[in-house]
Amino acid sequence: MTDNALLLPPLSPTPRSTPTRLKDRARTDRAELHAVLDAGLICHLGVLLGGTPVVLPTAYGRDGNLLYLHGSTGAGNLRAALEHDVSVAVTLVDGVVYARSAMHFSMNFRSAVVLGRAVEVTDPQQRLHGLRVIVEHAAPGSWDRVRPPNKKELAATAVLALELTEASVKMRAGGPNDDAGDIAAGGVWAGVLPTRQVWEPPVSAPDLGPGVAVPSSVSQRCTARQSG
Amino acid sequence: MTDNALLLPPLSPTPRSTPTRLKDRARTDRAELHAVLDAGLICHLGVLLGGTPVVLPTAYGRDGNLLYLHGSTGAGNLRAALEHDVSVAVTLVDGVVYARSAMHFSMNFRSAVVLGRAVEVTDPQQRLHGLRVIVEHAAPGSWDRVRPPNKKELAATAVLALELTEASVKMRAGGPNDDAGDIAAGGVWAGVLPTRQVWEPPVSAPDLGPGVAVPSSVSQRCTARQSG
Repeated sequence: MTDNALLLPPLSPTPRSTPTRLKDRARTDRAELHAVLDAGLICHLGVLLGGTPVVLPTAYGRDGNLLYLHGSTGAGNLRAALEHDVSVAVTLVDGVVYARSAMHFSMNFRSAVVLGRAVEVTDPQQRLHGLRVIVEHAAPGSWDRVRPPNKKELAATAVLALELTEASVKMRAGGPNDDAGDIAAGGVWAGVLPTRQVWEPPVSAPDLGPGVAVPSSVSQRCTARQSG
Repeated sequence: MTDNALLLPPLSPTPRSTPTRLKDRARTDRAELHAVLDAGLICHLGVLLGGTPVVLPTAYGRDGNLLYLHGSTGAGNLRAALEHDVSVAVTLVDGVVYARSAMHFSMNFRSAVVLGRAVEVTDPQQRLHGLRVIVEHAAPGSWDRVRPPNKKELAATAVLALELTEASVKMRAGGPNDDAGDIAAGGVWAGVLPTRQVWEPPVSAPDLGPGVAVPSSVSQRCTARQSG
């Protein structure tokens, strides 16, 4: 788990200063960031709560250069998220790397860590758009198929936007990086056990009326790979 | 995504004060926490870096009431992790909940968020044990099969332990919680699209010598479900 260059990681030197200002980077870097964010299903949001960096799993969505989050209005977490910089991590694990020595075990993965100050979206149209982006990220093809938010629901919901200006994208792929001596010694299996997220067949709600078919946006997703 | 009681999500009121002191809870709560931690593959660690709550994906392992993490000695992240309280989140997504209205979309999931002050493990035997726990979490059955850490590797590696005394476990399962009016209106499909992580067949390292078989700990894992 400490395959030094590439380990899943951290606790290795990735202080605030390391993430690159995206404006200084090539378009391919931004495309990589977007690809990781779009492939994830949930993110982990880091918020400063009472001096503690608390990590919260949450839904998200991306549109262009904006990451959208949402929450309950008036929630302590929400206020905290707006008062300090936050970070958002999206991680996809692609495999466990089995090495010939304990300290070269690692993970294959794709991860993005975005840093910045989230802002509350107040424009009614952008609020609706942000919620659409979040729902469509989790359940593509759903927004236009279901009842839109009503006034009461909208009043209870805050929409946050985080600009994708500072981010760190890391990836590891391929087999173990074993020491030459361990490879030469032979006899120990090494390789990768790949893993991926799959969809299983949809389960209709028990109280679903008769004759309501599973939408193609759902059934098609089930037959496609989630990531990769 | 704002199915209020149960949403994946956060930004709802889960301030530092909400996680329960485990000592005050029944043994079933601790068993639930352990089950989530044991089912996850990676965690997201929240560290305060330059005033920002930075979220880092990393490997971990659990033994009894201790969560083990590791990192490179001298790394800025590591120092930061020891100077302040940290949080560790492990999240398993079990499905996307499709509702009849946009704001009732949700996720089925199991998550654990642990808070506390990590300590550096200095006892040589416990350091080795912590590393074993981390490697065995990612790759069960591997530690005794491969070369153990040498002095140089050990000197470059810090082992951290976090006691499981303050944690929040959340779970959501089952179908959508739609409004009665939306259910009565009918005509809109609702249900759950389950998801799970699966292992694919192992890929041997290209430089693996002839006649080295895939260990049963690897091949058996491939035929078992990762979670659940």
